[in-house]
Amino acid sequence: MVGYAFMGAVHSQAWRTVGHAFDLPFDVRMAAIGGRDPVAVKEAADRHGWAAFETDWRELIARDDVSIVDVCTPGDTHAAIAIAALEAGKHVICEKPLANSVEEAAAMAAAATEAAARGVRSMVAFNYRRVPALAYARSLVESGRLGTLRHVRAAYQQDWLVDPSAPLTWRMQKERAGSGALGDIAAHIVDAAQFVVGDVLAGVSGTLETFVRSRPLSGGSGLSAASGGAGVGDVTVDDAAVFFGRFAGGGLATFEATRFATGRKNAMQLEIYGSSGGIRFDFERMNELLFFDGSLPDTENGYRRVLVTESDHPYLEAWWPPGHPLGYEHTFTHEFRDFLVAVSSGDDPSPSFADGLQVQKVLSAVSESAENGSGWVEV
Amino acid sequence: MVGYAFMGAVHSQAWRTVGHAFDLPFDVRMAAIGGRDPVAVKEAADRHGWAAFETDWRELIARDDVSIVDVCTPGDTHAAIAIAALEAGKHVICEKPLANSVEEAAAMAAAATEAAARGVRSMVAFNYRRVPALAYARSLVESGRLGTLRHVRAAYQQDWLVDPSAPLTWRMQKERAGSGALGDIAAHIVDAAQFVVGDVLAGVSGTLETFVRSRPLSGGSGLSAASGGAGVGDVTVDDAAVFFGRFAGGGLATFEATRFATGRKNAMQLEIYGSSGGIRFDFERMNELLFFDGSLPDTENGYRRVLVTESDHPYLEAWWPPGHPLGYEHTFTHEFRDFLVAVSSGDDPSPSFADGLQVQKVLSAVSESAENGSGWVEV
Amino acid sequence: MVGYAFMGAVHSQAWRTVGHAFDLPFDVRMAAIGGRDPVAVKEAADRHGWAAFETDWRELIARDDVSIVDVCTPGDTHAAIAIAALEAGKHVICEKPLANSVEEAAAMAAAATEAAARGVRSMVAFNYRRVPALAYARSLVESGRLGTLRHVRAAYQQDWLVDPSAPLTWRMQKERAGSGALGDIAAHIVDAAQFVVGDVLAGVSGTLETFVRSRPLSGGSGLSAASGGAGVGDVTVDDAAVFFGRFAGGGLATFEATRFATGRKNAMQLEIYGSSGGIRFDFERMNELLFFDGSLPDTENGYRRVLVTESDHPYLEAWWPPGHPLGYEHTFTHEFRDFLVAVSSGDDPSPSFADGLQVQKVLSAVSESAENGSGWVEV
Amino acid sequence: MVGYAFMGAVHSQAWRTVGHAFDLPFDVRMAAIGGRDPVAVKEAADRHGWAAFETDWRELIARDDVSIVDVCTPGDTHAAIAIAALEAGKHVICEKPLANSVEEAAAMAAAATEAAARGVRSMVAFNYRRVPALAYARSLVESGRLGTLRHVRAAYQQDWLVDPSAPLTWRMQKERAGSGALGDIAAHIVDAAQFVVGDVLAGVSGTLETFVRSRPLSGGSGLSAASGGAGVGDVTVDDAAVFFGRFAGGGLATFEATRFATGRKNAMQLEIYGSSGGIRFDFERMNELLFFDGSLPDTENGYRRVLVTESDHPYLEAWWPPGHPLGYEHTFTHEFRDFLVAVSSGDDPSPSFADGLQVQKVLSAVSESAENGSGWVEV
Repeated sequence: MVGYAFMGAVHSQAWRTVGHAFDLPFDVRMAAIGGRDPVAVKEAADRHGWAAFETDWRELIARDDVSIVDVCTPGDTHAAIAIAALEAGKHVICEKPLANSVEEAAAMAAAATEAAARGVRSMVAFNYRRVPALAYARSLVESGRLGTLRHVRAAYQQDWLVDPSAPLTWRMQKERAGSGALGDIAAHIVDAAQFVVGDVLAGVSGTLETFVRSRPLSGGSGLSAASGGAGVGDVTVDDAAVFFGRFAGGGLATFEATRFATGRKNAMQLEIYGSSGGIRFDFERMNELLFFDGSLPDTENGYRRVLVTESDHPYLEAWWPPGHPLGYEHTFTHEFRDFLVAVSSGDDPSPSFADGLQVQKVLSAVSESAENGSGWVEV
Repeated sequence: MVGYAFMGAVHSQAWRTVGHAFDLPFDVRMAAIGGRDPVAVKEAADRHGWAAFETDWRELIARDDVSIVDVCTPGDTHAAIAIAALEAGKHVICEKPLANSVEEAAAMAAAATEAAARGVRSMVAFNYRRVPALAYARSLVESGRLGTLRHVRAAYQQDWLVDPSAPLTWRMQKERAGSGALGDIAAHIVDAAQFVVGDVLAGVSGTLETFVRSRPLSGGSGLSAASGGAGVGDVTVDDAAVFFGRFAGGGLATFEATRFATGRKNAMQLEIYGSSGGIRFDFERMNELLFFDGSLPDTENGYRRVLVTESDHPYLEAWWPPGHPLGYEHTFTHEFRDFLVAVSSGDDPSPSFADGLQVQKVLSAVSESAENGSGWVEV
Repeated sequence: MVGYAFMGAVHSQAWRTVGHAFDLPFDVRMAAIGGRDPVAVKEAADRHGWAAFETDWRELIARDDVSIVDVCTPGDTHAAIAIAALEAGKHVICEKPLANSVEEAAAMAAAATEAAARGVRSMVAFNYRRVPALAYARSLVESGRLGTLRHVRAAYQQDWLVDPSAPLTWRMQKERAGSGALGDIAAHIVDAAQFVVGDVLAGVSGTLETFVRSRPLSGGSGLSAASGGAGVGDVTVDDAAVFFGRFAGGGLATFEATRFATGRKNAMQLEIYGSSGGIRFDFERMNELLFFDGSLPDTENGYRRVLVTESDHPYLEAWWPPGHPLGYEHTFTHEFRDFLVAVSSGDDPSPSFADGLQVQKVLSAVSESAENGSGWVEV
Repeated sequence: MVGYAFMGAVHSQAWRTVGHAFDLPFDVRMAAIGGRDPVAVKEAADRHGWAAFETDWRELIARDDVSIVDVCTPGDTHAAIAIAALEAGKHVICEKPLANSVEEAAAMAAAATEAAARGVRSMVAFNYRRVPALAYARSLVESGRLGTLRHVRAAYQQDWLVDPSAPLTWRMQKERAGSGALGDIAAHIVDAAQFVVGDVLAGVSGTLETFVRSRPLSGGSGLSAASGGAGVGDVTVDDAAVFFGRFAGGGLATFEATRFATGRKNAMQLEIYGSSGGIRFDFERMNELLFFDGSLPDTENGYRRVLVTESDHPYLEAWWPPGHPLGYEHTFTHEFRDFLVAVSSGDDPSPSFADGLQVQKVLSAVSESAENGSGWVEV
């Protein structure tokens, strides 16, 4: 695993757990973790249960005891690490967004295709696909329960930047993060919407906004610190992105992603309305799916609050009795389980780097629209 | 009152009630109701408690015992009736949208200004302003509790057209209704958002969609029937409208209005996020306002479900003890109360025809954007 | 109508409305209102739309233009007024609780039976039976959708006495009100539970509590004022009642009624669990019924939020399109509609005085249990 | 760890995690797991990450590499194992209910007191105390935010026995489980209520019910199988328990625990109302606490939905950013963390065996009341 900040911690927890929760085709050994700062990475290795550490990702990839590389670094380093790992014959899981540009993402997707021909697998880590409620939503749509798609209404609302004195981090710097809310959280709702609907966006119209244009520099030097030292630095990415689009097969979609929705903490929301049913989801209540089955009589109908904790629900065979909630980290455990099963069976894991590239194209189209008077841009 | 369909019924209920619920400067007498079909309008007069009826709106306006004209007809007739009434010295309440075009709306606004100089008053009936929860939300924003506006997220979701066999009515014909979801329900959320925020939209980008392009004709001849007799007729308006915009004073806004949100009945929703607080509202729970006060400590903070039924809340002095819900029709009772108080005091009622015109301009800009590749259109 | 305080206002609103909302067998004329204070009752007559007033209820009953007497006074006067009215051949609607004691209630029920033989009808005004959601819940239970009853969980939570400086009113004096939360609000949930379940309680065990034993006297002389003038007076009724019971046909039930549930305004709640389904209701969201249909597959099942605003729902034929909420006062409009229809058709209205007596017996059994170490008392 | 069924799995997950999530005074090594069936226990050891296994709990306790014994077996074996372990100088965590009788629980509490004098620690595993929302609720009450206690309204609703063909397991046999819903789930809400309130119940009145009195025997021989082989067996415990009580310091409390609340999966609910505030909680939404602060103005007040995922909330320093939910298993991780910290610091962990005994006395008083016409029983 490369990277040891927030994503590193949660990935580690999932790697520690996956082999105990699920019957896997492999034994999982947590061989080594990589990071540039030797003190910090050693501490992370101890804390998170990795047997060794490396300060150069090239060394990490080269290790004989590493057969899977899990890339948790900021987006500007994804392409180099992932492509090198694939070329070295290592299976790769890469955090989202796949890359900071369509060009890098395309190169990664090409490398993944080539690697797959050699039996080397790759996956982009859109973990929300592994929320049981959303995996179950996908199965409802796939089996036709919603009918023809009419509307997607998606939002990802956070509020951690509302305070203008919140410090600048790499997530607010274009050269590191590529974009702001767009790549960080809009990416999730675009992927989730496309995944559950089972179709891709054909075009979009959008706008971006940066409400607070400069922020204090923390002066720190850790992984999350911004470049630039002390004082005040410019926010060079978007605080919020809003856009609408149309699916290839028809159906309107709207998206809002923001770090300025005061009082909303991690409200990743998805509503899908079809000609014969609807679903609604909010990650803050991740164990619930609201489902409307249009085939029932009007008088007795309404959105059902399905607790997605039955043993027949996706991934739930590994967990607790009905009504006992799962948490955020389980999405990663499920992701790794699916990845390992795919590697073992020789299938291409999903979502592929090509799927990651497609999301990148949507985000790029939004940016292009935003720069051109919000006019329509085909994906 | 001119018109006696759904809006006629609810207006009548409010006229019957307003004088008993509130202390008014006038006695309310329900003089006469107008409609073209003599049998139907007589029945409506009896049912709804009007002392007389007329089959020609010109006769209605001309009556000496009529001092207020309440226009509840389809939008294509608003301008003619309202302008004539104002010229005849009658105070006018006109249902929304004010008119089917900016031109007509502008003429009405001009007539209203001229009439006001003569002490003749007018109001456009955006009744959602009189939902106590939204009137209270306005007071919270006005007193600065939300800080600087960041986001408005508005939607008006219904599902009465999901069934493709639902018959064509005048609401789906452009020549009568002007537009579909746009003028019927997007008008409400545009007005409500501008009202609560206290600012106007400066520009928009949008798209319109008609999912079901032809529908069976009912063959009926009532007020709600479509023109065209039996068989199948074309839907010539939008089923759904989605757009985003920016407020003059800053802040992003998104809007979705649809008759195809399966399972949502009358979900007129408004979320407003500012730099120091937020509010959320859904008309299906019209007695509740969710309010987030950002000044409280994070650990104990969250959206409060305020039951807007305290005696100090707007309009509640007339009603029941805390926790006893009000219903849809109360919004009209409140509207008429405010109108009568304004007429009595010589103030211009709010929202004025000029406010109605401003909403019309926003809707027109959305249409224009939709016809031009969703590019940005200034309002 | 006798009485003109809170209940008088809401009853008047319903009487004004019922003839316009529903097709009735009679024209409704609001003949006269009664009250002891001539100034206040005249003002109430004007405000609420009554043609005349009387200061002696005997005179009111004696009027030729009065054929229905609606009793809205405190409980200590119910028996005298209602029995006199029935004997005078007037149909009677009486507010709940039917009386302050089982003895009085029994006398009233006897008088009602005798009057019915003469075609004179009576009803006790348990208005919550006319909440469309609860009337619909009753129809679900009646048609077997819930199966065999297992549990009722009922609560009526208010908080208007949490503040110890809230003044003493007649509702806190035993000689006027009979009891506190028990007769005022526990009565409602006992009746509602029995109504929806379609069975009666066979026995109970309970306790009563008075948290604040003396309160300031307001010194006022109005209808709601306590007897005793200024200073401090004793609270001689219960602030809260909790009890459980068993239905005659099996099934456990628990009840909590309190004026001390801080932050709950009028949370009249009912949960019913049967062998094949469940329902949940909270009057603060009176337009919603949560319904669980146990016959659906576990994976897709959950409580549905049914908006009880469809035209096929009970009473909804008179009102607005789906999703447009009704309010508290509609329960009275529905009640009067049912009463008038029953009078016209020669049926006994429901709930009858005998039903009111049965509720009184339950409340009396709770009191008896509370006085005897909470031991079981058969009803 | 002794026991390897459902509780064994979730305890193992927590033991694997605690050392990585929290800074602990000890390294955690999962030495050995115990169970009677050698094949099954070996498989459990492998699956859950235990280094060794034993088929006799006496051998397990005797192992030198075991310093903590975690008892996850059915209640009839708790006393023997826990007392032996304490006598052997091992720290003990014991699942709830502490024992199947007050006598056994008292013996265990006595053994714990004696062991504590030797520095050997013990804790009863009421894991719901470690739900962050409930730990936070406790801190709100402790700091006086709720004022004087008025009401506790608690329920634990499940529905896994609604189907009469659900097989008999040891949980429905008195000799193994001691009681049914009473000891299994009422125990949790009694402890949680006493914990959050910070007081104990002084007396209770209650009733028990067994709705389905015989069930099919599965014929299996696993840990969860009932004794008795194939055919039909008697349910000898309660399906549901309802009772009310009074706290020593004043305040009414009601409790309902049932396995027959159709559609409720694991709805462990707690409402607490005090003179200056209130809280409400439902474990199905375990990351949320509803909090009402009575000191705010009525017009803007209401229950706040606090997402208990801020870094300052109890236990959250170890986990994810705000709005990222935790799950059921985290309650055990937190429990083990607190236990290890207490052992290290030489403090008595909480809840102690004495706390477990106190809960047992409440449950016993409920049973006694139920057998005696629901009359009041002092605890």
